[in-house]
Amino acid sequence: MTITKINYPNGMGYSRYHPQHLNHKHRLTTFGDRGMSLEHEINKSNAYYLAKGIAVVHKKPTPISIVKVDYPKRSAAVIREAYFSKASTTDYNGVYKGHYIDFDAKETKNKTAFPLRNFHRHQVEHMRECVRQGGICFGLIKFVKTNEIYVFKATDLFSYWDAQYHGGRKSIPKKVIDQRGYKIPYRLEPLIPYLDGVNKIIHI
Amino acid sequence: MTITKINYPNGMGYSRYHPQHLNHKHRLTTFGDRGMSLEHEINKSNAYYLAKGIAVVHKKPTPISIVKVDYPKRSAAVIREAYFSKASTTDYNGVYKGHYIDFDAKETKNKTAFPLRNFHRHQVEHMRECVRQGGICFGLIKFVKTNEIYVFKATDLFSYWDAQYHGGRKSIPKKVIDQRGYKIPYRLEPLIPYLDGVNKIIHI
Repeated sequence: MTITKINYPNGMGYSRYHPQHLNHKHRLTTFGDRGMSLEHEINKSNAYYLAKGIAVVHKKPTPISIVKVDYPKRSAAVIREAYFSKASTTDYNGVYKGHYIDFDAKETKNKTAFPLRNFHRHQVEHMRECVRQGGICFGLIKFVKTNEIYVFKATDLFSYWDAQYHGGRKSIPKKVIDQRGYKIPYRLEPLIPYLDGVNKIIHI
Repeated sequence: MTITKINYPNGMGYSRYHPQHLNHKHRLTTFGDRGMSLEHEINKSNAYYLAKGIAVVHKKPTPISIVKVDYPKRSAAVIREAYFSKASTTDYNGVYKGHYIDFDAKETKNKTAFPLRNFHRHQVEHMRECVRQGGICFGLIKFVKTNEIYVFKATDLFSYWDAQYHGGRKSIPKKVIDQRGYKIPYRLEPLIPYLDGVNKIIHI
C-alpha cells in the first residue's frame, strides 16, 4: 500500500483517512454539484436500499493493526499507535433477495481502459471463492473523467485477470466493459442504482 | 461500550484489543488445553471452511474512528489518535452454498440462561433486515462454564428480544436454547463446526 507522505490537519473524519483516498492524494471526485467520493456515493446508495427494505449491503470497516491503547480515567479508550493493514476481502458485501452480494469499487482516470492493477490479488481470489459458493460478485468500476459507472461481473474480470499472467494485457478495454458490463447512470435515489446491474447478473 | 480502564503493555496483537475482550477484562476463555478466545476459535473454524472450499465467512474488522494520522518519512502512516466506534452490523458474514450467512458470537458465564443484554439493539435490527432479504442469521452462543456452544436461530432470538419490551424476561432460558437451538460440540477440525447448525436451519 502506497501512502502519500503529507500531513493533514487534525480532527478530520474517518472516511477521509481511508487508505484508498490516501492513494489518490486525498482527491475527492467532483462531478457536477456533487463533490462526493465514490465510497460516499455507494454508502448513500446502500443507506437508501436499506431504508427501503431493498437490500442490506454495508462497507466493511478499514482494517487496522492496533499497537498501543491508552485508558484515560473517566473517558473512552484512545488508540495511540495503529497502522493500516491489508484487507483480506473486498470492501462491500451483503444480502439481496436471498443472494449473497460481494463487490469492490474502483476508480480510474484512464479514458480507454481499466488497469487491472486497481484490483489486488487477494480481492480477486476472495471473489473467486465467493463465486464458487454461489455469491454474486462484481467490480463497481468508475471512469472518473466521464463520470461513467459500470457493474462488471467478477467472472469476466477473472478472464482478464488470469490472462495478464499468460501474456495478456494488463487492462480491460473500456469497450469490453461497455459491452459485457452494465452501465449504471447516476440517479437521484439511489445515487448509484447498482442493483439494476445485479438484477441482470442474476437473470443471465 | 464499557471500557475497562487498565493499561496493557505495548506491542500486543490486534485481536486482543477487540472491545469485546476489553469488556471482559481481557479474559481469555480457557478450556482443556486450548486457551483460545471464542473469536479466535471461530476464525480458525472459518479458515478451515475457506481452505476446504466449504464456505467463505470472515470476521469484519473492528470499526475505528480515526482522528489523527502521522506520515513519517520513508515509513508507513501511523494512526496517533483513534477511538473504538460502535458496529452497525454483526461481526461475521459470508456465503455458504449460495446462502448469505450472518451471525454474532456471544459468551455468557450464566449457567441457566443467556442474558439478552449480550446483544445490542442494532445487531438484532441488522439480523432482522438480513432475514427479510432471505439471509440465514443466528447467534453463536457459548456457555463458558460448561463449554457448550449453540447455533440459535435469529427468528427465535427475535421472539425473546421483542417480548422483553412487553413484560417478558430479559434472558433466554438455557433449556429453550437446548430445545430450539443446535448444540455444536467442539471438534478437531473445524474447531466449531457451526455449519452443522446452519444446515439444520436451511433444511427446516
